[in-house]
Parts: sequence; C-alpha cells; structure tokens
Amino acid sequence: MNIISLTLWTLEHNCYYVYTVLIVFFIGFTVVHKNRLEANLNRTAATKKKLARKWNSGRERDFPDDDDPDHLVPAIPEDTPHVPYKPPQRTDEEILRRSREYYELMAQRRTVRAFSPEPIPDEVLNNIIKTAGTSPSGAHTEPWTFVVVQDQSVKEAIRTIVEEEEELNYTQRMSRQWVTDLKPFATKHIKPYLSEAPALLLVFRQTHSWRADGKKKMHYYSEVSVAIAAGILLAAIQYCGLVALTSTPLNCNARLRELLSRPVNERLELLLPVGRPHQNATVPDLSRKTLSEIMVKI
Amino acid sequence: MNIISLTLWTLEHNCYYVYTVLIVFFIGFTVVHKNRLEANLNRTAATKKKLARKWNSGRERDFPDDDDPDHLVPAIPEDTPHVPYKPPQRTDEEILRRSREYYELMAQRRTVRAFSPEPIPDEVLNNIIKTAGTSPSGAHTEPWTFVVVQDQSVKEAIRTIVEEEEELNYTQRMSRQWVTDLKPFATKHIKPYLSEAPALLLVFRQTHSWRADGKKKMHYYSEVSVAIAAGILLAAIQYCGLVALTSTPLNCNARLRELLSRPVNERLELLLPVGRPHQNATVPDLSRKTLSEIMVKI
Repeated sequence: MNIISLTLWTLEHNCYYVYTVLIVFFIGFTVVHKNRLEANLNRTAATKKKLARKWNSGRERDFPDDDDPDHLVPAIPEDTPHVPYKPPQRTDEEILRRSREYYELMAQRRTVRAFSPEPIPDEVLNNIIKTAGTSPSGAHTEPWTFVVVQDQSVKEAIRTIVEEEEELNYTQRMSRQWVTDLKPFATKHIKPYLSEAPALLLVFRQTHSWRADGKKKMHYYSEVSVAIAAGILLAAIQYCGLVALTSTPLNCNARLRELLSRPVNERLELLLPVGRPHQNATVPDLSRKTLSEIMVKI
Repeated sequence: MNIISLTLWTLEHNCYYVYTVLIVFFIGFTVVHKNRLEANLNRTAATKKKLARKWNSGRERDFPDDDDPDHLVPAIPEDTPHVPYKPPQRTDEEILRRSREYYELMAQRRTVRAFSPEPIPDEVLNNIIKTAGTSPSGAHTEPWTFVVVQDQSVKEAIRTIVEEEEELNYTQRMSRQWVTDLKPFATKHIKPYLSEAPALLLVFRQTHSWRADGKKKMHYYSEVSVAIAAGILLAAIQYCGLVALTSTPLNCNARLRELLSRPVNERLELLLPVGRPHQNATVPDLSRKTLSEIMVKI
C-alpha cells in the first residue's frame, strides 16, 4: 500500500474524525475572530440585503438583540426634552476671518519627538481633557477614558513596555515596507520622549459599559468616536500652545492596561506625550498635500 | 435503511465531496473576511509571538512584504532633512488662559439637525478643509479626500440614497436596542437636513494609493488617521462659527461612492452637513460626563 492509498484509506475510514477536526477548527476560528467579524457585518450587510431580497426571506437583522424587544429602554431617557440651540451668531466676515486664523494656527502643528521637561500646569491638562470630552459620539455614549500620567516611575514603566513591544514590531511584526516607509521620520524602538515629556496622555476606548439598571450599554461606533475625540484633543493641545506626538502603540494594549489598572472593557487607542517642544527639537521637512489634492467640490 | 444510517452511509461514501465542500467553504469564508482578519493580526500578534518563541521558529512577520526586501524604497525620501521646530513660545499664564478659552468655545458645540439655507463663503469651506488636512496621519500618508457638495440636485440625490438605506437600517439592520437608544435624539430615516444644509462634507478614507514609481502605497492606520482629521474638521467648523451634524451613514458607501465618482480605493467614513443653525434649531437637553468620569490622573 503506497502512501497515497494509505492516506485515502485513512481519510475514508476515519471520515468522522476528520469532519470533527475540520468543523471544530472552523468554529474555533470563527469564535477567535468574532469581534472583527461582527464589525465586518456593517460592510457585508449591503450584499446580504440583496440576497435577502432575492430569497424573499423577510426581516432579518444584522445586529440581533439579546434582550426582550418588548422591554427595551433607551440608555438616555426617551423623554429627554429638546431645547432651542442659539450659539453666538457670527457675520460672514467674522466666519471668514476666524476660519483663516484657525487654519494658520493649526498649520503650525507638527508631531514632536523631543520635549522640554517643564511640567504642564494641572488646570491646563484638565482643560484639554475637558475639551476632548466635548466631542460627539455614537448615541452620546462618550466611550473614552483619558489617563494622564505625570508620575516619573509610571512613565518609565510605560517606556519599558512600549520599547520592548516596538522592538518586536520593527523586527518581526511590521512589514519591511512599513519599516522602510517610517525611515524618513527617524522613528525607532528607543523612545526617550516617553520618560522625558512632562505628561503622557493615554486614550482608552470603552468597547461597552453598564447602565444604571445593570444592563450592558452598547457603544456604537466607538472607534471613530474616540479617534474624533483624539482629533479635538490634538486641536486643544495646539490651540493652547503645547505640542504632542500622536502614536498608536502596536500590541501594547494588554500590558499597559494592566499597568494602569484599566478594566477589560477598555482598549488603548492612542498614546500622546504632551509638553513644550525641546529647544533642539527637529521635525522632518515634509510638506502637506495641497487643497486641490484633498478636496473635490461639487 | 433508516434516515440516520442513510446519512452516515452517504457521509462515508462521499467523504471527498464533503471534505471539498468544507474546505472550499472555509477558504471562501477566509477570503471574504480577509481585510478584517488582517486588521485583527495586530491584536493576535501578541499570542503569536509567544507561540513563535516557544517553537523557536525565528523571524516571522505578521505583515509580509510582496516586494523584494533588498529594494525597498520609502514612500517619502529617506534623506528628507530634519529641520529645527520653533513654534511661538507661550507663557504658562497664556497657555492656561488659552486652554480655558478653547474649552469654553468647544463646549458650546452641539450636533445640529436643522440648518439655515444661507450659503457658506467659498473660502471658508476651503479653510476648514485645509485645516482638516493639517492632521497627523500614519507615516504622513494623508489618506483623506473631502468631497464638498453644494449643488442642490446632488444634495438631493445623496438624501435619497441615505434615506433609502437608513430606512433599511432602522427596520432591518440595526438591533432594536440600538434603534431604542437613538430615540432621545429624535433621529429617523427622513433627513431633510441633507438637502437643506448649504454644504455636505463627505469624508472619504483612501485605503491605499499609488506612488510616483507606480507601486502601491500602504496607508497605515488609515481609519484612525481619517477620524482624527474629522475631529480637527469639526473643531475648525466650531471655531469659525458654523455648525455640523456628525453622521456615519451605515451601508451607503457603495452608492455614494458611485454617485460622486470616487475611486474604489476610497471609502465613505463620515457625512457632515455644515452651515449655520436654523433659527428654530433644537438639541436634546443632554449633559456631558464630568471630568472625573473621563479622566484618571497618575
């Protein structure tokens, strides 16, 4: 009996074992990737809709409920009153002047990798976090926690974790093209700014939370909400006259969450060292895309 | 022969067909979810790393290259000079005053669903888009396209598409809990603001682009980069004195991309009607989380 016949014979006579292994592997794979696949439902729903119509299969929800649909209560009271909104009215001239002024201020923002160690007044940190907290969020869930680290030993512990993970990222996890594309920025796995900047702002995303009635509160669109809040945080940092480094530490979530005692429903999205620029700070001499490269008017 | 024996007999005698179906289904499933699964590699890489160490399998990259690693060229020239960065220095008092002033301005921002039809000066639209274009992005890829729609018939076509998809979203795609959680906001699938607001800003994310040398340019962290840019866009809108509605139209990407002739490497992330608030505009009387609910200081 040659090897091929033996293999075929084994596959035939043990087919139930093989089925079991294939199915278990498939189920295991699906469970492991469940979260990502759920997110993907948004994108595949268009296709599903067409199929559903074709098969005439009636109502079918992509995001099924686990609660009794007869007893659903909104996370925010349904009878929340709507009140008139009267922000200060500005003239066309004022709007134009302010839009120019703001562009000029924001265009000076650069990602900085060398910080002066001067501490940041406490109220300034409070104000920039409060400003980030004014961001819009899916169904007003405000799915963010901002951890502000000024303690030197905690900053050093963060630096150790990030440097260890980044070394693995650069040498093993990221593609060579990615590592090459980062060369002009002179980034490397040694990150002195993590212990030198006066404050580190860690932006955590709450994937969900709990309501007063003990039910799980869903945080719709939490990724985009938290990143928008980070944009407003960066705007506040720039407006007041500080600088930051925007970073998304790859694979540091579990260790930093543990170090900072954050709950399991939180995920680290961004890590921003903040402060004044070091007197010798340099930035790569890059230009930005022109307006015609980023805007289409219709 | 009863039904169980018949099934077992069929499974045994057609095991190669069954294997083929299972494997084809598994491969098909994996291919369909490829993009999402790739993103998930970031998260599972920590586990892989441990396994890799255990098996002592040496270097293994989560993001493999498709190019010859000996001839990798960064998307931005590697010899880009680094230049001193000297933004205006502000005193502690000035930083404090500006951080307060900015918080007070941004705290007045609300999502508005009723707009005055007054047009927005063209340069204002240019300035707020230019401001969004100052945002940081992964490896300075600037992965965004802002489509500004002022043409009435195009606004109406967008409204038709969004309303059709939103009706399906509310009745079929979103969970009943999600629909319930939106009740306090009085959102519904009829969206007059899409044709009434003087301008619609559609924020597209470029998943990748092409370099001058014809190679594919990877856009690292494009989701978070584009959402940060949207945060800075919202900040610019608020600063100059206009208002916006932040929306993430579910399942409208393909139809709006086609309507607006956007290329296949672009994905609609956000749709923001922008203008002045209608004189009768109302907003739900919500409060925001307090500082102690969103900030942890260490």
